[in-house]
Amino acid sequence: MNPQLSSSSFLVFVFVFVFLHSLKPASIYCHPLDPLTPSEISAVSNIIKSSHLGSSKSLSFHYVGLDELDKPDVLAWASTHRWNKAAPPRRAFVIVRSEKKTHEIYVDITNHSIVSDKVYEGFGYPMLNFEEQEAASALPFDYAPFVESVKKRGLEPEDVLCTTFSVGWFGERKQGRRLLKIQCFLTGDTVNFYARPLEGVTVVVDLDAMEIVEYEDRMVVPVPGSTGTDYRAAKQKPPLGPRTKPGIIVQPEGKGFEVDGHMIRWANWEFHLGYDVRAGTVISLASVKDSEKGIFRRVLHRGYVSEIFVPYMDPSEEWYYKTFFDVGEFGFGLLAAPLEPMTDCPANAAFMDAYITDRDGLPIKQSNAFCVFERYSGDASWRHTEFGIPGQVITEVRPEVSLVVRMVSAIGNYDYVIDWEFKTSGSIKLGVSLTGILEMKGTQYTHADQISGDQHGTLLAANTMGVYHDHFVTFHLDLDVDGPDNSFVKSKLKTVRVTDDSSPRRSYWTVAKETARTEADALVELGAEPAELLVVNPSKKTKMGNDVGYRLISHGATAASLLSDDDYPQIRASYSKKQVRVTAYNKSEKWAAGLYADESRGDDNLAAWTARNRVIENTDIVLWYTVGVHHVPYQEDFPVMPLLSGGFELRPANFFESNPLIKTPANKLVHLPNCPRNP
Amino acid sequence: MNPQLSSSSFLVFVFVFVFLHSLKPASIYCHPLDPLTPSEISAVSNIIKSSHLGSSKSLSFHYVGLDELDKPDVLAWASTHRWNKAAPPRRAFVIVRSEKKTHEIYVDITNHSIVSDKVYEGFGYPMLNFEEQEAASALPFDYAPFVESVKKRGLEPEDVLCTTFSVGWFGERKQGRRLLKIQCFLTGDTVNFYARPLEGVTVVVDLDAMEIVEYEDRMVVPVPGSTGTDYRAAKQKPPLGPRTKPGIIVQPEGKGFEVDGHMIRWANWEFHLGYDVRAGTVISLASVKDSEKGIFRRVLHRGYVSEIFVPYMDPSEEWYYKTFFDVGEFGFGLLAAPLEPMTDCPANAAFMDAYITDRDGLPIKQSNAFCVFERYSGDASWRHTEFGIPGQVITEVRPEVSLVVRMVSAIGNYDYVIDWEFKTSGSIKLGVSLTGILEMKGTQYTHADQISGDQHGTLLAANTMGVYHDHFVTFHLDLDVDGPDNSFVKSKLKTVRVTDDSSPRRSYWTVAKETARTEADALVELGAEPAELLVVNPSKKTKMGNDVGYRLISHGATAASLLSDDDYPQIRASYSKKQVRVTAYNKSEKWAAGLYADESRGDDNLAAWTARNRVIENTDIVLWYTVGVHHVPYQEDFPVMPLLSGGFELRPANFFESNPLIKTPANKLVHLPNCPRNP
Repeated sequence: MNPQLSSSSFLVFVFVFVFLHSLKPASIYCHPLDPLTPSEISAVSNIIKSSHLGSSKSLSFHYVGLDELDKPDVLAWASTHRWNKAAPPRRAFVIVRSEKKTHEIYVDITNHSIVSDKVYEGFGYPMLNFEEQEAASALPFDYAPFVESVKKRGLEPEDVLCTTFSVGWFGERKQGRRLLKIQCFLTGDTVNFYARPLEGVTVVVDLDAMEIVEYEDRMVVPVPGSTGTDYRAAKQKPPLGPRTKPGIIVQPEGKGFEVDGHMIRWANWEFHLGYDVRAGTVISLASVKDSEKGIFRRVLHRGYVSEIFVPYMDPSEEWYYKTFFDVGEFGFGLLAAPLEPMTDCPANAAFMDAYITDRDGLPIKQSNAFCVFERYSGDASWRHTEFGIPGQVITEVRPEVSLVVRMVSAIGNYDYVIDWEFKTSGSIKLGVSLTGILEMKGTQYTHADQISGDQHGTLLAANTMGVYHDHFVTFHLDLDVDGPDNSFVKSKLKTVRVTDDSSPRRSYWTVAKETARTEADALVELGAEPAELLVVNPSKKTKMGNDVGYRLISHGATAASLLSDDDYPQIRASYSKKQVRVTAYNKSEKWAAGLYADESRGDDNLAAWTARNRVIENTDIVLWYTVGVHHVPYQEDFPVMPLLSGGFELRPANFFESNPLIKTPANKLVHLPNCPRNP
Repeated sequence: MNPQLSSSSFLVFVFVFVFLHSLKPASIYCHPLDPLTPSEISAVSNIIKSSHLGSSKSLSFHYVGLDELDKPDVLAWASTHRWNKAAPPRRAFVIVRSEKKTHEIYVDITNHSIVSDKVYEGFGYPMLNFEEQEAASALPFDYAPFVESVKKRGLEPEDVLCTTFSVGWFGERKQGRRLLKIQCFLTGDTVNFYARPLEGVTVVVDLDAMEIVEYEDRMVVPVPGSTGTDYRAAKQKPPLGPRTKPGIIVQPEGKGFEVDGHMIRWANWEFHLGYDVRAGTVISLASVKDSEKGIFRRVLHRGYVSEIFVPYMDPSEEWYYKTFFDVGEFGFGLLAAPLEPMTDCPANAAFMDAYITDRDGLPIKQSNAFCVFERYSGDASWRHTEFGIPGQVITEVRPEVSLVVRMVSAIGNYDYVIDWEFKTSGSIKLGVSLTGILEMKGTQYTHADQISGDQHGTLLAANTMGVYHDHFVTFHLDLDVDGPDNSFVKSKLKTVRVTDDSSPRRSYWTVAKETARTEADALVELGAEPAELLVVNPSKKTKMGNDVGYRLISHGATAASLLSDDDYPQIRASYSKKQVRVTAYNKSEKWAAGLYADESRGDDNLAAWTARNRVIENTDIVLWYTVGVHHVPYQEDFPVMPLLSGGFELRPANFFESNPLIKTPANKLVHLPNCPRNP
């Protein structure tokens, strides 16, 4: 899949070789949370195709994933069988389309049978699959009005390429059709076709019929030239950009983590690394070892990217509908980018493959779908220099090492980098980075001085407008801090006035803890008031009597949606004005924009669930956190944007009795490889 | 100074040796912004001691630093002489105390003369020097009531250690005395004396008289035990903390940066790395090369930590006054921690020394005061995978390499890590990390259940309260984006309602640019409204006609002060409620809390300057940004807290015509050192 791999194949070989040496043989039986194996996927496909659905010519698969055991069963299995003593029952959840209907099918893989097959009658449609998008993209070339539009612009159809866009929902009341819009671009001598849109043309495809059902060529807009758009190294001409000297991480004692099937064990962490065609990376059962207590303590039962809402801010005919749900419509796992050794992940990374399914439900291997590596940031994890003791200077420093699980999803033009970083301090840090290519609109303007009125973007290059938009990346975080029953606490910082003479001070702040009783109490608009946000286990206390907990800390990218509440995309993503929400755990509440995000109407989203206002105190709860970016493009974002990063940290807060790293040995004398530094 | 160094001396030798090979011989003449050399410091001291002040027995030096040339002269010298053709004139600015008076002295080093000597008559006092703090700390042991207090607590004076605290200002109207408070601690078998405070005792020292002028023993509070307080590796007993495998950066082609005197050149950056006893690291004349234009373009004329305001939130007799100005009272450079190779900075770091002065104005070397290293984060600087072109998958990725300049200042209990990170993308990223030891208050409580009423902190260990407090780290950022005359622009994101049928959408947001005309227009409370904050050069446009600029992006830690405006510490730090301020450039406006921060009254601070409301449009302006943290302690912060990080980024925004890294070669084939990986 990745033509770049061969160029660094020698190094890959070296690292994979070394890495394999550190692998334990995988357990005989899979873990109940393991993603479906290729043979399981094939079995599921066969079972469905052997059913009554098999005779349907229109049968197409849109989701094939693990139907995991109920949470208590997973926990029971994990605690009693300890990963390798008995085979867990295996079931799949499948969504297919057949005869214009959406079927939700549960398959018992172990017993080779269909458990249930239900036709979904509500609003919205399942994830788009590769093949139907490819087929739809090809339709315009056999559609005479489109070919005419191309020629009218003085272009040749063979230089044109089309891609697919979800259509959104804009207030239609009756059940709609399963539609897709097509936008086309000029390629010519660049691979960056996004930079060369054919504006003015609207193509609507009915996916069930697989035919163009609406067509409009509203106006001709100049197509931007290709100069400066290509990003491939081989296409660059001097003057070249800044160069740096190479640097690689060497681990003289080898890697510090162990991969046992899908379980990863490293330093004081263990967790299950799963995969889903919709969510991408899924982290489960993350537990941190408490050295003092000598046990692993549970932190995160499940975490993954639940949805990414990306509304554009141009209300014109060809752009208003661009209000994407990248996870639910396109599949974050489906579009995983093959990671490049040495560039996407450092030299010491291990790479892993994943499996998705094609439209026939058959397995497709995704090479290098994620990587796992130890990060040596060069920072300290803690330090102190003491000048205060006469006659001595004491300095103690511990370098920071963390473990990163990375995946990249290339949803059309954009690339999202998601990093799960496990720290020895007990923190889990989530990094979200945006890169890739902007969505650009063709325009007649070639200089900002020509522009009048709101053009909804930044003029990036001649005839090229980078359109304003947002990214809202919503994480599902089923924290189980020291057990499943947790509470959400806001420690509000309140200013206290000193109005008597009790102190020379006239004010100070203190902490007022408020435990959220219901889901409404747990809605948080970041920045509205100073508060620490915690998930605590109210039945567990430290020796000092403090609530055992984890704290949520934002690291930038805290934007919330600015759309009006009655705007259709906002109705669909009505959860996107509060960055923090907490729900009572419910196995079915996985996808923030609903199970059927395509053409959804907001009736089954995270905000709808929280509107039930369930009790969330001292019970199994899920934290939902949205990383948000308002994206005003700048010329530097053209033709490919530099990484823009944000994220958050889940940091132990009275979880340990003290800093767990104080007793970590200094480990500073490293034996360098016995070799010259400049070979 | 650093007893740890010897343990890794072999490696240090290796790296220093390799590093020296990459050094160019320093230019014959220093740069006009170079910090004072040891011989210059000695000369300054001699000149002053040869003046009328030399006969004063009470003469003590509180600040000795470069009095840099006026900005136009620096720029003229830098552009015409290009660092090495002529010796610039050299002057020092000195603050001494003599006969209870503060003298501001300008010394012409080149001509060996005093230019001016002015007695300062206003409020506030200069930075405390080492020696007077040491002398004050010793006073209690010869003060009978204190010895009695110690014995009354069943302790021996030889197990007690005292440190010094600035006293603040609490509304006294007449000119005060130069005072210091002393707090004492039990050491015993721990070096973490901060964890064992002797509460209830107040000791006030008059620094000019160097005698105790107030003493009170208000109450006896249990002194916390030493268990779990010591952080030295040698003192830890099993079970030990989590261990990780070592990893070190190897640079097969050597370092990529060049140190020429105090100029650093790396990739597309060059800048001057200076030092000041008050500010610590000073970055000047940072310019980034525009590969397309083939020239260096100016970005940052001067940047440094101007002040750190740290108010505690306990109004009681022994704690109310703890409202520190760490830079202006104690000296961020004065308390620079000697950086440890391999732990404070990675294996590929180069270390540099700095010079400060003692109370006699003589030079003292600070070994390893800062380090410079290339960071290989393991992240991409940009990437894209293209699935949209039938029959191929294109992946282009460029790994990120940046250059970090790091210093650590250990202001008593706290350690601040300040990172200046230069990115090839043109960004400058500032990292502020807090670590070190909390200020702890002795208490009778040994369990949270015993606590009644507001105790102003978290019970961290038996008898140990971690007191609530804030850190406000204010940066002086004299941006000169493509030249000195800049403007400050808020690009406000405004929701537009669609009320007609012009679009199926009902809303979108757009950008309304507002250029700040005066200093009042430029006050920003982060989070109050969505806006992009930019410093632009209104006379420079990109080819597309966009204003050339840099954008300010917060990366977490955006707290603002919660104290009431009439509270005395807030009056002194009245700038601390707006995270962003812009001033008209004025050479004398360097220190956010005023030149004399100790016992200051807020009459010469950043807020007082901005209250003048000068015009700041299209002129030389300075951006002031405050990184803020409300610190509610948790048990993990005991006995030494894990790094807590925040910061911001100055990111090119229509500064370049396009992403400057697109033309950077891929550089992914790295030849590993020819050696086994497990020697």
